[in-house]
Amino acid sequence: MFDILHRIGVTSSPEAVYDALTTIDGLAGWWTEDTTGDSEVGGVARFRFLPGGFDMKVLETKPAERVLWEVVDGPEEWIGTQVRFELKQEDDCTIVLFRHLGWREPVEFMYHCSTKWASYLLSLKKYVETGTGDPAPRDVQISNWH
Amino acid sequence: MFDILHRIGVTSSPEAVYDALTTIDGLAGWWTEDTTGDSEVGGVARFRFLPGGFDMKVLETKPAERVLWEVVDGPEEWIGTQVRFELKQEDDCTIVLFRHLGWREPVEFMYHCSTKWASYLLSLKKYVETGTGDPAPRDVQISNWH
Repeated sequence: MFDILHRIGVTSSPEAVYDALTTIDGLAGWWTEDTTGDSEVGGVARFRFLPGGFDMKVLETKPAERVLWEVVDGPEEWIGTQVRFELKQEDDCTIVLFRHLGWREPVEFMYHCSTKWASYLLSLKKYVETGTGDPAPRDVQISNWH
Repeated sequence: MFDILHRIGVTSSPEAVYDALTTIDGLAGWWTEDTTGDSEVGGVARFRFLPGGFDMKVLETKPAERVLWEVVDGPEEWIGTQVRFELKQEDDCTIVLFRHLGWREPVEFMYHCSTKWASYLLSLKKYVETGTGDPAPRDVQISNWH
Protein backbone atom coordinates (compact mmCIF):
# COMPACT_ATOMS: atom_id res chain seq x y z
CA MET A 1 0.00 0.00 0.00
CA PHE A 2 1.16 3.54 -0.78
CA ASP A 3 0.24 6.75 1.03
CA ILE A 4 0.28 10.46 0.26
CA LEU A 5 1.56 12.55 3.19
CA HIS A 6 1.47 16.31 3.81
CA ARG A 7 2.02 18.73 6.69
CA ILE A 8 0.91 22.36 6.92
CA GLY A 9 0.70 24.83 9.78
CA VAL A 10 -2.32 27.12 10.04
CA THR A 11 -2.08 30.27 12.14
CA SER A 12 -5.35 29.70 14.01
CA SER A 13 -6.93 27.47 16.63
CA PRO A 14 -7.43 23.72 16.07
CA GLU A 15 -11.18 24.40 16.43
CA ALA A 16 -11.19 26.73 13.40
CA VAL A 17 -9.34 24.15 11.27
CA TYR A 18 -11.65 21.41 12.52
CA ASP A 19 -14.69 23.46 11.46
CA ALA A 20 -13.22 23.83 7.97
CA LEU A 21 -12.92 20.02 7.80
CA THR A 22 -16.31 19.07 9.25
CA THR A 23 -18.88 21.51 7.87
CA ILE A 24 -20.20 21.68 4.31
CA ASP A 25 -19.57 25.44 4.19
CA GLY A 26 -16.05 25.00 5.52
CA LEU A 27 -15.19 22.24 3.04
CA ALA A 28 -16.60 24.33 0.18
CA GLY A 29 -14.31 27.16 1.24
CA TRP A 30 -11.08 25.37 0.37
CA TRP A 31 -11.63 22.10 -1.56
CA THR A 32 -14.51 22.52 -3.99
CA GLU A 33 -17.37 24.98 -4.06
CA ASP A 34 -19.61 22.10 -5.17
CA THR A 35 -19.73 20.32 -1.80
CA THR A 36 -22.99 18.80 -0.57
CA GLY A 37 -24.25 15.98 1.62
CA ASP A 38 -23.71 15.15 5.26
CA SER A 39 -20.37 15.83 6.96
CA GLU A 40 -21.32 14.17 10.28
CA VAL A 41 -20.08 10.73 11.33
CA GLY A 42 -21.92 8.07 9.32
CA GLY A 43 -22.92 10.58 6.64
CA VAL A 44 -21.56 10.87 3.11
CA ALA A 45 -20.18 14.18 1.88
CA ARG A 46 -20.10 14.72 -1.89
CA PHE A 47 -17.33 16.71 -3.55
CA ARG A 48 -17.69 17.55 -7.24
CA PHE A 49 -15.17 18.96 -9.70
CA LEU A 50 -15.42 19.62 -13.42
CA PRO A 51 -14.11 16.16 -14.40
CA GLY A 52 -15.95 14.19 -11.68
CA GLY A 53 -15.79 13.87 -7.94
CA PHE A 54 -15.54 11.90 -4.73
CA ASP A 55 -18.03 10.64 -2.15
CA MET A 56 -16.55 10.37 1.32
CA LYS A 57 -18.11 8.44 4.16
CA VAL A 58 -17.24 10.17 7.42
CA LEU A 59 -15.82 7.40 9.63
CA GLU A 60 -14.57 9.39 12.59
CA THR A 61 -14.46 12.95 13.92
CA LYS A 62 -12.86 14.04 17.16
CA PRO A 63 -13.25 17.78 17.79
CA ALA A 64 -10.04 19.74 17.24
CA GLU A 65 -8.06 16.50 16.80
CA ARG A 66 -9.01 14.19 13.97
CA VAL A 67 -11.18 13.63 10.89
CA LEU A 68 -11.25 10.33 8.99
CA TRP A 69 -13.05 9.63 5.72
CA GLU A 70 -13.41 6.58 3.50
CA VAL A 71 -13.83 7.01 -0.23
CA VAL A 72 -17.06 5.25 -1.22
CA ASP A 73 -17.41 6.58 -4.77
CA GLY A 74 -15.13 8.26 -7.29
CA PRO A 75 -12.21 7.20 -9.50
CA GLU A 76 -11.45 3.50 -9.21
CA GLU A 77 -7.99 4.17 -7.71
CA TRP A 78 -9.59 6.11 -4.84
CA ILE A 79 -12.36 3.72 -3.83
CA GLY A 80 -11.59 2.07 -0.49
CA THR A 81 -8.75 4.47 0.32
CA GLN A 82 -8.96 6.67 3.41
CA VAL A 83 -8.26 10.35 3.98
CA ARG A 84 -7.12 11.37 7.45
CA PHE A 85 -6.51 14.78 8.98
CA GLU A 86 -4.80 14.94 12.39
CA LEU A 87 -4.59 18.28 14.20
CA LYS A 88 -2.31 19.46 16.97
CA GLN A 89 -1.19 22.79 18.38
CA GLU A 90 2.46 23.78 18.04
CA ASP A 91 4.02 27.22 18.50
CA ASP A 92 1.30 29.67 17.45
CA CYS A 93 -0.31 27.45 14.89
CA THR A 94 -2.37 24.34 14.25
CA ILE A 95 -0.41 21.61 12.52
CA VAL A 96 -2.41 19.49 10.07
CA LEU A 97 -0.93 16.06 9.37
CA PHE A 98 -2.67 14.80 6.26
CA ARG A 99 -2.57 11.23 4.98
CA HIS A 100 -4.36 9.73 1.98
CA LEU A 101 -3.91 6.05 2.83
CA GLY A 102 -4.12 2.79 1.00
CA TRP A 103 -3.36 3.42 -2.67
CA ARG A 104 -2.85 -0.02 -4.23
CA GLU A 105 -0.21 1.12 -6.75
CA PRO A 106 1.87 4.30 -7.19
CA VAL A 107 0.19 5.07 -10.53
CA GLU A 108 0.72 8.38 -12.33
CA PHE A 109 -2.66 9.59 -11.02
CA MET A 110 -1.28 9.21 -7.48
CA TYR A 111 1.63 11.52 -8.35
CA HIS A 112 -0.93 14.07 -9.60
CA CYS A 113 -3.20 13.74 -6.56
CA SER A 114 -0.25 14.22 -4.19
CA THR A 115 0.66 17.59 -5.71
CA LYS A 116 -3.00 18.57 -5.97
CA TRP A 117 -3.62 17.72 -2.29
CA ALA A 118 -0.68 19.98 -1.36
CA SER A 119 -2.22 22.85 -3.25
CA TYR A 120 -5.66 22.24 -1.67
CA LEU A 121 -4.10 22.09 1.81
CA LEU A 122 -2.45 25.47 1.17
CA SER A 123 -5.95 26.61 0.16
CA LEU A 124 -7.25 25.29 3.53
CA LYS A 125 -4.52 27.30 5.30
CA LYS A 126 -5.43 30.43 3.36
CA TYR A 127 -9.16 29.92 3.92
CA VAL A 128 -8.85 29.56 7.68
CA GLU A 129 -6.34 32.41 8.01
CA THR A 130 -8.00 34.93 5.69
CA GLY A 131 -11.58 33.76 5.07
CA THR A 132 -10.91 33.11 1.37
CA GLY A 133 -9.43 29.90 -0.06
CA ASP A 134 -8.83 28.69 -3.61
CA PRO A 135 -11.40 25.88 -3.98
CA ALA A 136 -12.35 24.35 -7.34
CA PRO A 137 -13.24 25.69 -9.85
CA ARG A 138 -10.90 28.55 -8.82
CA ASP A 139 -8.11 26.16 -7.78
CA VAL A 140 -4.43 26.37 -8.74
CA GLN A 141 -3.81 24.61 -12.07
CA ILE A 142 -0.76 22.37 -11.80
CA SER A 143 -0.73 20.55 -15.17
CA ASN A 144 -2.73 19.39 -18.20
CA TRP A 145 -4.74 17.31 -15.70
CA HIS A 146 -5.65 20.58 -13.89
CA MET B 1 10.49 2.12 2.14
CA PHE B 2 8.28 5.16 1.60
CA ASP B 3 8.31 7.57 -1.32
CA ILE B 4 7.10 11.11 -2.00
CA LEU B 5 5.44 11.45 -5.42
CA HIS B 6 4.44 14.53 -7.40
CA ARG B 7 3.36 15.42 -10.94
CA ILE B 8 3.34 18.84 -12.58
CA GLY B 9 2.95 20.02 -16.16
CA VAL B 10 5.16 22.82 -17.44
CA THR B 11 4.12 24.72 -20.56
CA SER B 12 7.51 24.52 -22.25
CA SER B 13 9.84 22.06 -23.94
CA PRO B 14 11.42 19.13 -22.05
CA GLU B 15 14.80 20.72 -22.85
CA ALA B 16 13.94 23.89 -20.92
CA VAL B 17 12.82 21.87 -17.88
CA TYR B 18 15.92 19.69 -18.15
CA ASP B 19 18.13 22.80 -18.12
CA ALA B 20 16.40 24.01 -14.93
CA LEU B 21 17.26 20.63 -13.33
CA THR B 22 20.85 20.27 -14.52
CA THR B 23 22.49 23.71 -14.32
CA ILE B 24 23.47 25.59 -11.17
CA ASP B 25 21.73 28.75 -12.42
CA GLY B 26 18.59 26.79 -13.28
CA LEU B 27 18.44 25.05 -9.90
CA ALA B 28 18.99 28.39 -8.12
CA GLY B 29 16.02 29.78 -10.03
CA TRP B 30 13.44 27.56 -8.37
CA TRP B 31 14.82 25.60 -5.39
CA THR B 32 17.29 27.73 -3.46
CA GLU B 33 19.27 30.78 -4.50
CA ASP B 34 22.21 29.35 -2.53
CA THR B 35 23.05 26.54 -4.98
CA THR B 36 26.69 25.75 -5.72
CA GLY B 37 28.87 22.82 -6.79
CA ASP B 38 28.81 20.57 -9.80
CA SER B 39 25.55 19.52 -11.43
CA GLU B 40 27.15 17.12 -13.93
CA VAL B 41 27.07 13.33 -13.55
CA GLY B 42 29.49 12.31 -10.80
CA GLY B 43 29.53 15.81 -9.31
CA VAL B 44 27.94 16.99 -6.08
CA ALA B 45 25.53 19.93 -6.10
CA ARG B 46 25.08 21.79 -2.79
CA PHE B 47 21.74 23.32 -1.86
CA ARG B 48 21.62 25.55 1.22
CA PHE B 49 18.63 26.95 3.10
CA LEU B 50 18.46 29.00 6.29
CA PRO B 51 18.17 25.93 8.56
CA GLY B 52 20.68 23.76 6.67
CA GLY B 53 20.86 22.01 3.35
CA PHE B 54 21.41 19.00 1.14
CA ASP B 55 24.32 17.69 -0.93
CA MET B 56 23.21 15.69 -3.93
CA LYS B 57 25.46 13.41 -5.94
CA VAL B 58 24.30 13.44 -9.55
CA LEU B 59 23.92 9.77 -10.47
CA GLU B 60 22.31 10.02 -13.88
CA THR B 61 21.20 12.61 -16.42
CA LYS B 62 19.56 11.86 -19.75
CA PRO B 63 18.85 15.02 -21.75
CA ALA B 64 15.16 15.98 -21.79
CA GLU B 65 14.23 12.71 -20.06
CA ARG B 66 15.66 12.02 -16.63
CA VAL B 67 17.70 13.35 -13.69
CA LEU B 68 18.66 11.18 -10.70
CA TRP B 69 20.38 12.36 -7.51
CA GLU B 70 21.47 10.61 -4.35
CA VAL B 71 21.53 12.53 -1.09
CA VAL B 72 25.09 12.32 0.29
CA ASP B 73 24.80 14.92 3.07
CA GLY B 74 21.96 16.67 4.89
CA PRO B 75 19.38 15.68 7.50
CA GLU B 76 19.78 12.09 8.67
CA GLU B 77 16.38 11.09 7.25
CA TRP B 78 17.49 12.19 3.77
CA ILE B 79 20.91 10.54 3.56
CA GLY B 80 20.87 7.61 1.14
CA THR B 81 17.51 8.56 -0.34
CA GLN B 82 17.23 9.38 -4.04
CA VAL B 83 15.48 12.18 -5.90
CA ARG B 84 14.30 11.44 -9.42
CA PHE B 85 12.79 13.67 -12.09
CA GLU B 86 11.33 12.02 -15.19
CA LEU B 87 10.23 14.21 -18.09
CA LYS B 88 7.87 13.51 -20.97
CA GLN B 89 5.91 15.55 -23.46
CA GLU B 90 2.11 15.45 -23.31
CA ASP B 91 -0.39 17.82 -24.92
CA ASP B 92 1.39 21.18 -25.04
CA CYS B 93 3.45 20.69 -21.92
CA THR B 94 6.30 18.83 -20.30
CA ILE B 95 5.17 16.49 -17.55
CA VAL B 96 7.54 16.15 -14.61
CA LEU B 97 7.11 12.96 -12.59
CA PHE B 98 8.97 13.54 -9.34
CA ARG B 99 9.87 10.86 -6.82
CA HIS B 100 11.86 11.21 -3.60
CA LEU B 101 12.56 7.54 -2.97
CA GLY B 102 13.64 5.42 -0.07
CA TRP B 103 12.51 7.13 3.14
CA ARG B 104 12.96 4.55 5.89
CA GLU B 105 9.96 5.70 7.96
CA PRO B 106 7.01 8.02 7.29
CA VAL B 107 8.16 10.47 9.99
CA GLU B 108 6.55 13.88 10.45
CA PHE B 109 9.49 15.47 8.60
CA MET B 110 8.51 13.40 5.54
CA TYR B 111 4.98 14.87 5.65
CA HIS B 112 6.58 18.35 5.69
CA CYS B 113 9.02 17.59 2.87
CA SER B 114 6.21 16.24 0.68
CA THR B 115 4.25 19.48 0.87
CA LYS B 116 7.41 21.55 0.53
CA TRP B 117 8.47 19.60 -2.59
CA ALA B 118 5.05 20.34 -4.12
CA SER B 119 5.53 24.04 -3.54
CA TYR B 120 9.09 23.96 -4.98
CA LEU B 121 7.86 22.04 -8.04
CA LEU B 122 5.24 24.74 -8.62
CA SER B 123 8.16 27.18 -8.32
CA LEU B 124 10.00 25.16 -11.01
CA LYS B 125 6.91 25.41 -13.25
CA LYS B 126 6.71 29.18 -12.69
CA TYR B 127 10.46 29.63 -13.23
CA VAL B 128 10.51 27.82 -16.56
CA GLU B 129 7.27 29.42 -17.78
CA THR B 130 7.95 33.01 -16.69
CA GLY B 131 11.67 33.29 -15.88
CA THR B 132 10.99 33.91 -12.18
CA GLY B 133 10.46 31.19 -9.58
CA ASP B 134 10.05 31.29 -5.81
CA PRO B 135 13.31 29.73 -4.56
CA ALA B 136 14.47 29.94 -0.94
CA PRO B 137 14.76 32.31 0.84
CA ARG B 138 11.74 33.75 -1.04
CA ASP B 139 9.88 30.41 -0.94
CA VAL B 140 6.25 29.83 0.08
CA GLN B 141 5.99 29.37 3.87
CA ILE B 142 3.78 26.39 4.63
CA SER B 143 4.11 26.05 8.43
CA ASN B 144 6.20 26.76 11.55
CA TRP B 145 8.88 24.61 9.89
CA HIS B 146 8.86 27.07 6.93
